[in-house]
Amino acid sequence: MQMSADPDDNLRRALANVKAAAQRGAQVVCLPELFRSRYFPQREDPSHFALAESIPGPTTESLSEAASKFNVILIVPVFEKRAPGLYHNAAVLIDSHGAIIGVYRKMHVPDDPNFYEKYYFAPGDLGFRAFDTAHGKVGVLICWDQWYPEAARLTALRGAQILFYPTAIGWHCSEPTEVREQQLAAWQIIQQSHAIANGVFVVAVNRVGVEEELTFWGASFVADPAGRILAQASRNQEEVLVVPCDLNRIEEQRHGWPFLRDRRVEAYDGLMERYLG
Amino acid sequence: MQMSADPDDNLRRALANVKAAAQRGAQVVCLPELFRSRYFPQREDPSHFALAESIPGPTTESLSEAASKFNVILIVPVFEKRAPGLYHNAAVLIDSHGAIIGVYRKMHVPDDPNFYEKYYFAPGDLGFRAFDTAHGKVGVLICWDQWYPEAARLTALRGAQILFYPTAIGWHCSEPTEVREQQLAAWQIIQQSHAIANGVFVVAVNRVGVEEELTFWGASFVADPAGRILAQASRNQEEVLVVPCDLNRIEEQRHGWPFLRDRRVEAYDGLMERYLG
Repeated sequence: MQMSADPDDNLRRALANVKAAAQRGAQVVCLPELFRSRYFPQREDPSHFALAESIPGPTTESLSEAASKFNVILIVPVFEKRAPGLYHNAAVLIDSHGAIIGVYRKMHVPDDPNFYEKYYFAPGDLGFRAFDTAHGKVGVLICWDQWYPEAARLTALRGAQILFYPTAIGWHCSEPTEVREQQLAAWQIIQQSHAIANGVFVVAVNRVGVEEELTFWGASFVADPAGRILAQASRNQEEVLVVPCDLNRIEEQRHGWPFLRDRRVEAYDGLMERYLG
Repeated sequence: MQMSADPDDNLRRALANVKAAAQRGAQVVCLPELFRSRYFPQREDPSHFALAESIPGPTTESLSEAASKFNVILIVPVFEKRAPGLYHNAAVLIDSHGAIIGVYRKMHVPDDPNFYEKYYFAPGDLGFRAFDTAHGKVGVLICWDQWYPEAARLTALRGAQILFYPTAIGWHCSEPTEVREQQLAAWQIIQQSHAIANGVFVVAVNRVGVEEELTFWGASFVADPAGRILAQASRNQEEVLVVPCDLNRIEEQRHGWPFLRDRRVEAYDGLMERYLG
């Protein structure tokens, strides 16, 4: 999706996209991170807290209705207002009857020039989760999480068969073409690596379009448990990508490369340290 | 390297390659996994234990001499005999004065058709390590380790600036071309991902050639801290690849993408479990 300045317009178009995906046979539909608005963390501005809402709230209510109407499972990113002055970057999993199955709150929160998320979002405190659905066990992670092998591993160890990454990632206008290509390649590689290391499907769902100083690079994709890109969306156009995922591929892949068998769990305690140097 | 059936011949050619690399300006030279022999774990045969040797032993003595003669740091894979009936798949780091700096024992030991390593090698018990050298802090991991983000992360957290992966990986003769390409791509992607996730250089050093049912796929490469392939060797010819690695790139990369800052170390305890489902 490309986001407009009007949250209601973004909601209307999200609902239309959910309908379009369902009509093309989608069973699980994932919307991009913070899809109700432009990417407001580009600036630190307290007025943006007005965009936040509770869970359940207006966004989940609209999407719950769509889920049951179109008989699809939905992954719905929400700028969550948990309490006055306490906000999260969250995603809600809604089943095809419109019920909320669970919530994920972004665990790894970035803070970089034009991505000032630590100002807006408290770090998630629900941990890494996988949710049973009628169409497989689904893990949800959000954007910056995608750079952390720990997040993918923990979600896969919970039994997730597909990792969904609602995302808002783009280039700063000052960045040269060569750097842009390298960044997009790295973003794709790190997520393919999660598919490979864990023998799971990975779905990355990004926005497109120019918003102030950022150009969101789109290129949403689905990778299979061998890390192969099954389908990839445009870098600059909205697109509804419907991709069949044969969950039997997971076991087949893990028989060929049985990585989960050989983890040295008794030697991994250093992973709970910031640094060991 | 392509390995012959004669361990002495392999040693001679390894020494010649070390000399060639040093003459071309190499400062740290890494030999492929188990370079003294053909890849004997293709079969379970107790006669192969005769190939093992102690550390220090004949292989490290020869290479120590070469290290001081040619003024290079060496990473020397050894089939280690630790005690009668106790063996490891190891790699020895030798400094440019010929002294042994440290030993790494392969932590993740595979066992798959034609890769029966669990029969030969006890799992490593020295953990994940980084070694100070005159040319940077060096981490050593071996082959199957390369599929484990945990191994790369722990070695990087110890301060490693370059991760070396001596390797012996290839295709089984029954595998079709499409599967071969996918396997090689996955092998490259997972190691590029370690460079990206940790902001370090990654060096993969594989063998080439056909040995019984396996065709080793070569394609040794060096990736920079952004995951870019700086150089890649042939898939079927021996090659001495000398690649400059500017260690200043590490800090630059980590400033741009400060992943180490945001790890949720307090939420990673599940990584010490086999499964959480």
